[in-house]
Amino acid sequence: MPTVKAYAAPSATAPLIPTEITRRPVGATDVLIAIRYAGICHSDIHLVRGDWGPVTYPQVVGHEIVGEVVEVGDAVTKHAVGDRVGVGCMVDSCRECENCLAGMENYCLKGNTQTYGSVDRDGTITQGGYSTHVVVDQDFVLKVPEAIPFEAAAPLLCAGITTYSPLAHWGAGPGKRVAVVGMGGLGHMAVKIAAQMGAEVTVLSRTLDKKDDALAFGATRHLSTMDDATFTDNADTFDLIVNTVSAALPLDRYLRMLRLDGTMVNVGAPPEPMPVHVFTLFGNRRSFAGSSIGSIAETQEMLDFCALHGIAPETELIGVDSINEAYERVLSSDVRYRFVIDTATL
Amino acid sequence: MPTVKAYAAPSATAPLIPTEITRRPVGATDVLIAIRYAGICHSDIHLVRGDWGPVTYPQVVGHEIVGEVVEVGDAVTKHAVGDRVGVGCMVDSCRECENCLAGMENYCLKGNTQTYGSVDRDGTITQGGYSTHVVVDQDFVLKVPEAIPFEAAAPLLCAGITTYSPLAHWGAGPGKRVAVVGMGGLGHMAVKIAAQMGAEVTVLSRTLDKKDDALAFGATRHLSTMDDATFTDNADTFDLIVNTVSAALPLDRYLRMLRLDGTMVNVGAPPEPMPVHVFTLFGNRRSFAGSSIGSIAETQEMLDFCALHGIAPETELIGVDSINEAYERVLSSDVRYRFVIDTATL
Repeated sequence: MPTVKAYAAPSATAPLIPTEITRRPVGATDVLIAIRYAGICHSDIHLVRGDWGPVTYPQVVGHEIVGEVVEVGDAVTKHAVGDRVGVGCMVDSCRECENCLAGMENYCLKGNTQTYGSVDRDGTITQGGYSTHVVVDQDFVLKVPEAIPFEAAAPLLCAGITTYSPLAHWGAGPGKRVAVVGMGGLGHMAVKIAAQMGAEVTVLSRTLDKKDDALAFGATRHLSTMDDATFTDNADTFDLIVNTVSAALPLDRYLRMLRLDGTMVNVGAPPEPMPVHVFTLFGNRRSFAGSSIGSIAETQEMLDFCALHGIAPETELIGVDSINEAYERVLSSDVRYRFVIDTATL
Repeated sequence: MPTVKAYAAPSATAPLIPTEITRRPVGATDVLIAIRYAGICHSDIHLVRGDWGPVTYPQVVGHEIVGEVVEVGDAVTKHAVGDRVGVGCMVDSCRECENCLAGMENYCLKGNTQTYGSVDRDGTITQGGYSTHVVVDQDFVLKVPEAIPFEAAAPLLCAGITTYSPLAHWGAGPGKRVAVVGMGGLGHMAVKIAAQMGAEVTVLSRTLDKKDDALAFGATRHLSTMDDATFTDNADTFDLIVNTVSAALPLDRYLRMLRLDGTMVNVGAPPEPMPVHVFTLFGNRRSFAGSSIGSIAETQEMLDFCALHGIAPETELIGVDSINEAYERVLSSDVRYRFVIDTATL
């Protein structure tokens, strides 16, 4: 099983192109997955374009992967040939640090092995899901419930868990007022999940273009952040603000919308630091926090939650030939709400 | 009871001087307190010097007040003549907002009435504890247990509750590693309280001058923040960092010392904003928070806790004639650890 088809970035500036890559032989605890669908995450674009540091090209990205198990190693007990499975943002971790031992591999203190662009256990660079096959240790493979349409399951592996985790951790539920900042791939999942959890959900974004969608997804309000009244009218209002925007925002304005013991948690990743006034945090004992994907156990919990409640992302299915065009559309926010690649077109 | 002796700031730049001020008549729910001791808090100096905004002079400060009840209003049920009582940073609140109704007057959404420098219910400016007497509504008067030496009780009303509240809220206790940044009036109380709660306490300050004291107060380590190794050796270490320093610090360096789900909480009040990198918060799902004194109920809880466990601040008793000199010593960090004014010298 050494060589498989893939779609790779040859450099930071060139379009992605078809290529072939080598996957490692299926080890004792490995699962070979025939990839069916792969979501396009904004992170994919950041990485291949070198926004987050040097990249070894060619690089295959994609960390929202679903497919079928086609081979398992001798010691595999968790998955079987034919299973519908998924792989998210990480494919391994140190398994020794206190966070890994606590089942929080996403916060591995040695840095977990990312699905693409990380140094793997064999010294090679991990290659992502824009590909026909991938080999992953069984412990980092999720079960995709039958109730979730297969292509819609892909974005749950990043956009779904990245928003589910902070919503669950900070207690979104009945009686809680949750604001979601930005309604792209992550934001629209945050709205659906928070509403299903029973929270009262408000969307905060620059324009009101997606207001009808927001209400359909379960939000009760959609407010423009270009309108100063949004901030003044909602002072001391939210228990939780989930910020999915990866650009720097005027934090104090948002923080002042938190009520007693409220938390604003960033899942968006602006590269530049953002200033915070301590006096803003003194009011209502506010907190500003970060959250990074979720553990494997929590990712499974999220998949089961979505299956139980019929929650799925809004997707636009594309063939591999449309990946470069899709990247441009992601960059101009022209997607409702997640592109998913049909890898049968590879 | 209209006119009482006090020590006031006549302007932002002149030394404090003896004066007389008017207290309101004892209303139905009021308590008249003969002040015995008043602590000197760094906030007193900030306020009288105009660091926090315009001041109406002359202004009497002091919000660490203990004394004896000498008169009570007709409707007073909580306190009686002869009681040992205390008054902290606030003397009233709106009593109507959701935070007040939840018993969290310190986070009153309309802004509670501060012990000095606030507009009182009668439209006058509140005057603080560097005085012989004060009139306070019974609901904002604390009971000072006999087990606490009277002059040592004064600093508990600000320095004690300001550190007790975040330690209690964020769960300092057995198995928790707490760092205290800065060991002045607030910091030394944070060390004593956190150690008594059962946490493992580390002091972080620029010099090691107070190391012997820190260990005597219950810390297990005292590390210098001038030494880079302090930050690298203690990465991913603390559950809670209580920052008592009112100057801007390089937050990311401190935040990286938090372990999974750790919180850094500021009780120090730097006036300038501090930059935070979201990527630092992504690691270990870290939080940066603020905490402002404590509720009346929690302040009573803190006093009872200190009485039960024999915890008291380290104080240096002075007469009113030494207030201006004491201010200079506070500004040069030349106090171990809190000046307390004997108001009998007024």
